Amino acid sequence: MKAAVVRSFTEPLTVEERPVPTPAPHQVLVRMETSGLCHTDIHAARGDWPVKPAPPFVPGHEGIGVVEAVGDQVNHLSAGDRVAIPWLGEACGHCDHCVSGWETLCLEQSNSGYSVDGSHTEYAVAHGTYVVPVPEGIDPLDAAPLTCAGVTTYKAVKLSGARPGARVLVSGIGGLGHLALQYARIFGAETIAVDVTDEKLTLARELGADHVIDARTQDVAEEAQKLGGADAAISLAVSNESFSAAYGSLRRGGTLVLVALPAEGTLALPVFDTVLNGITVVGSIVGTREDLAEVFRLHRLGRTRVVRETRRLDDINSSIDEVLEGKVSGRLVFDLR
Amino acid sequence: MKAAVVRSFTEPLTVEERPVPTPAPHQVLVRMETSGLCHTDIHAARGDWPVKPAPPFVPGHEGIGVVEAVGDQVNHLSAGDRVAIPWLGEACGHCDHCVSGWETLCLEQSNSGYSVDGSHTEYAVAHGTYVVPVPEGIDPLDAAPLTCAGVTTYKAVKLSGARPGARVLVSGIGGLGHLALQYARIFGAETIAVDVTDEKLTLARELGADHVIDARTQDVAEEAQKLGGADAAISLAVSNESFSAAYGSLRRGGTLVLVALPAEGTLALPVFDTVLNGITVVGSIVGTREDLAEVFRLHRLGRTRVVRETRRLDDINSSIDEVLEGKVSGRLVFDLR
Amino acid sequence: MKAAVVRSFTEPLTVEERPVPTPAPHQVLVRMETSGLCHTDIHAARGDWPVKPAPPFVPGHEGIGVVEAVGDQVNHLSAGDRVAIPWLGEACGHCDHCVSGWETLCLEQSNSGYSVDGSHTEYAVAHGTYVVPVPEGIDPLDAAPLTCAGVTTYKAVKLSGARPGARVLVSGIGGLGHLALQYARIFGAETIAVDVTDEKLTLARELGADHVIDARTQDVAEEAQKLGGADAAISLAVSNESFSAAYGSLRRGGTLVLVALPAEGTLALPVFDTVLNGITVVGSIVGTREDLAEVFRLHRLGRTRVVRETRRLDDINSSIDEVLEGKVSGRLVFDLR
Amino acid sequence: MKAAVVRSFTEPLTVEERPVPTPAPHQVLVRMETSGLCHTDIHAARGDWPVKPAPPFVPGHEGIGVVEAVGDQVNHLSAGDRVAIPWLGEACGHCDHCVSGWETLCLEQSNSGYSVDGSHTEYAVAHGTYVVPVPEGIDPLDAAPLTCAGVTTYKAVKLSGARPGARVLVSGIGGLGHLALQYARIFGAETIAVDVTDEKLTLARELGADHVIDARTQDVAEEAQKLGGADAAISLAVSNESFSAAYGSLRRGGTLVLVALPAEGTLALPVFDTVLNGITVVGSIVGTREDLAEVFRLHRLGRTRVVRETRRLDDINSSIDEVLEGKVSGRLVFDLR
Repeated sequence: MKAAVVRSFTEPLTVEERPVPTPAPHQVLVRMETSGLCHTDIHAARGDWPVKPAPPFVPGHEGIGVVEAVGDQVNHLSAGDRVAIPWLGEACGHCDHCVSGWETLCLEQSNSGYSVDGSHTEYAVAHGTYVVPVPEGIDPLDAAPLTCAGVTTYKAVKLSGARPGARVLVSGIGGLGHLALQYARIFGAETIAVDVTDEKLTLARELGADHVIDARTQDVAEEAQKLGGADAAISLAVSNESFSAAYGSLRRGGTLVLVALPAEGTLALPVFDTVLNGITVVGSIVGTREDLAEVFRLHRLGRTRVVRETRRLDDINSSIDEVLEGKVSGRLVFDLR
Repeated sequence: MKAAVVRSFTEPLTVEERPVPTPAPHQVLVRMETSGLCHTDIHAARGDWPVKPAPPFVPGHEGIGVVEAVGDQVNHLSAGDRVAIPWLGEACGHCDHCVSGWETLCLEQSNSGYSVDGSHTEYAVAHGTYVVPVPEGIDPLDAAPLTCAGVTTYKAVKLSGARPGARVLVSGIGGLGHLALQYARIFGAETIAVDVTDEKLTLARELGADHVIDARTQDVAEEAQKLGGADAAISLAVSNESFSAAYGSLRRGGTLVLVALPAEGTLALPVFDTVLNGITVVGSIVGTREDLAEVFRLHRLGRTRVVRETRRLDDINSSIDEVLEGKVSGRLVFDLR
Repeated sequence: MKAAVVRSFTEPLTVEERPVPTPAPHQVLVRMETSGLCHTDIHAARGDWPVKPAPPFVPGHEGIGVVEAVGDQVNHLSAGDRVAIPWLGEACGHCDHCVSGWETLCLEQSNSGYSVDGSHTEYAVAHGTYVVPVPEGIDPLDAAPLTCAGVTTYKAVKLSGARPGARVLVSGIGGLGHLALQYARIFGAETIAVDVTDEKLTLARELGADHVIDARTQDVAEEAQKLGGADAAISLAVSNESFSAAYGSLRRGGTLVLVALPAEGTLALPVFDTVLNGITVVGSIVGTREDLAEVFRLHRLGRTRVVRETRRLDDINSSIDEVLEGKVSGRLVFDLR
Repeated sequence: MKAAVVRSFTEPLTVEERPVPTPAPHQVLVRMETSGLCHTDIHAARGDWPVKPAPPFVPGHEGIGVVEAVGDQVNHLSAGDRVAIPWLGEACGHCDHCVSGWETLCLEQSNSGYSVDGSHTEYAVAHGTYVVPVPEGIDPLDAAPLTCAGVTTYKAVKLSGARPGARVLVSGIGGLGHLALQYARIFGAETIAVDVTDEKLTLARELGADHVIDARTQDVAEEAQKLGGADAAISLAVSNESFSAAYGSLRRGGTLVLVALPAEGTLALPVFDTVLNGITVVGSIVGTREDLAEVFRLHRLGRTRVVRETRRLDDINSSIDEVLEGKVSGRLVFDLR
């Protein structure tokens, strides 16, 4: 089988022939159909983050495929089932985070495409309890971006307190943001989309944004305040500038959700205003298996639209370049069929 | 009657004779018994904050007294009722904050001892709907600190998510902190008290702290992590150092609550850790009338102990000096009887 | 001016000429445009409930009109503003329910068209703080049903825990139900509509129901369980039969919301199943001013569609007959212009 | 080893010699120290409930013991660790209930002492992931009742919304109720204890009840309403009489929690009052592993006191008689050491 492999943090990935892996008793073997390219893959491939993966490894955690074989402890899945391989490769299953619905905070988790081999490959093994079934009727090319970009923004919107009667601002209508915008509306909120290109602003309108702010020519905070201010802002780009704009868009009692994982950096949080105005800032990291199941259910009900383009796995290095150059509209997905 | 008056942001307060005020139709006239000295009074007297009060004015918003007369629109209070005059002098009563239990965020609020005359006086008028009844059996010397130090820390603890099974760290066991510590325990949490004097650490133990950290000789974050980390930290002192210590004490999914209102300043919020660890930072500003009613009920049930010392109103300037010099254990309360 | 008046619980209403009322200092005078007919008006006119209104009185609490004059204590409204007169005529403003966002539970509330004169009239007075502004761009014929049928079902859906990923069953797609169904979807839920006429089932599909059950030919609980069971059921008809069907539709952890106010009666709650399956049953009564403001905002954003028919106030008695005969699709609204 | 065995639903239990079981790869072998006798054991032994256990089986689900051996897939426990064997023997670990913190609602769960052999024995095997570690310093005789009576009432109090400022009524201060009362206080609530014997009323006062109602001579609902009504009532006895008394004790917005599992029966829920007063009725079934861990932590912090008496396993049949005769103060615990 073919797999994309990180052999060094300073070299391009190689696309190699490898033997098809054998599932352990608790694992499933998945014949991959699609696998989405996430910015995290690039951080992994470059060793950007404090705790680094150990090359050689296969990145990818937006993997969709069909179960080919199951280990003998896996009873609830069978060959032929379509499943997703998400970022959360495995968690301990018994710590307080796991037991109380926050497995994504488990300290003993493994992560697909990072601490264990991931989905940019033709065949992958994964923990049978931690893969998530994909309902019938969802296109695997859609399911891939939902598996990380989808669930991550879905969780962020959940934590934002988005609800009918609230106003939610989403800044950056790209791979993550175009989904965040849709989820904010699905949670019932009035939505404000912010971007800097005509194409993205048009996409935002198509996706049902109630208001659109062109950050090239308009002051984001000022425009948001004219509308009454945002009850929540989803900050997908992390810089002090975008943080300030999102923070300044909030009304009293508002919540700012941080989503992205830059390699480093701090944000300057104004104390007096945060206390006086009752502001909350919350960090949000992916979502649980249940969050992902909800994301899939919403898509199957026709409530979301995934903007993505297809690439071949052989082109993974050029695909990474495309992402880094900011040329991509929506998400890139490797078609492995 | 006698009243303490701020005539200039750069001069000491004067204690003056003034005519007893007449209540408007929606007001009550209160013969003051006690009035607590809050750090906010000092910020008010010095014009420290962006929106300044207009001298001459009477500071004070921890006022306890007995209703002497009621305006003709006030039907639910009578002469003889004991009431508290808190920071929230009045709110609009119909905005979304007011209607949904967040009157403290009302943009049209007036504030006692700041935008309207307050409680450092022998007689005060206040809005009949916004004073809070003090239940029988509470010492007015206790009720005063509860009216701001109490309700402010109570609300902060509420927002912290303190509950049985959680671990809450309170840093600074002074006028605010000794109450925050008690509330954290009342909400069911395991408590960690942090301070830098033997006297405060002893007080913390007396008040039932489960763990005590001496920040002179121990690393706060390290000690807290040895205990498993804090689910919430109440940051009463606002500096990047104390913020960092409180932040570093948190476990995954933890919440840091900011309470104090420094004149200015920002905190450096680490992005990667906040996202990866699912950290929340929340600004908390005083509490509602209902929060204060709850604070009084808890005290009447014998669940709280107020540490305070009595002063004469004539000594208000030296009392301010005492607070600024950090000499005070607990809260200073003017006895106006 | 013309007004519909209940003079006796056993006689038809009379439509009478009355002098235009003068607003008290805290009131507004409203020139009515529309007023919706609610089943509660019929209970009021017949004295069905334990605490009865005192004839003669003007019923109606779905009133929309334009402010003609304001009392001198009303500062936030002016002549020309469009407002709604809802069921909650006034609340005390200082009890724990009022202060904590639950004014609808205030024990000292007055109710429009019940304990004080209501909206089935050409001019009405109402408490300036308790009328709710109607945003520009909403048809007064739509606004009327939203003022009670809308906010009541909106609140019920809120309390049901409807959210993305949940499945909500609404039984009865009439005046209340066609709005409940839309709100369930607006809160993000997958929806199941139940009714017994082709017309209503067709309406449900038009309004975006994900599933439709024809209770004439299908077993409601069985069909709901085939779909995985409902996380929440909104029970608009109150009988042991419909309660049983709704109860039986729930999955584990599900919530059944009771909305309607029959004159009497009890429901048989199965204990073993309620405990074993972790079921919640919750009674829901109208909504607050903030809930109604949210309802209006959603309508203005184009998220709801109101099904209603127009009648003349002179026809109030025949309109009541129409409602009682179950002939009405959606809501009847008196056009008072 | 010795074990108590149910061989028939119509015969007394036998205490038999059995071979010490061997743990499967995912199991631990536990040398039992104590095992509490729960009313559920009696329902199990008699086949009272709709889904019956299959004799012969060993009842018991309040088991405390020391790990003697671990299966080779159990990595987080070692010989010598003290653990609890609770009602939840195993859950699927991947359904939406399991993933979202509600494993107690898992449809594929097994239950200790019911569908799998339980803890009334000298040696038991249990699923390594579903046993709960008992912290150092907790007496195994206390830990046993906490494992079901404790966690069940803890969860009920959690769902009741008990919190500072709320008033919670607990009716029946026996094996469950004496713990429910303590948890209500630990969650910060003002507490009302109801019972019908001098001994239990005295115990309630010792455990810190703020108010005590003697149901022999006082009307429970009336007395509760004099205090302002209860925000929550925990109904441990299930009969229409006790349900009515608890229901009648509630104030507007109140919650009634049902806990016990009678073999059959319905409660008569008044519709008009439930809707008008915004009442919630919630069924509560045991608690999760995390709830139990919290219960243990609270006990270790010295916040709870367990009232229990010790029996020998050989006396299990007479112990059952004692429970059925209502003679027992607190909980009976078999000492297996």
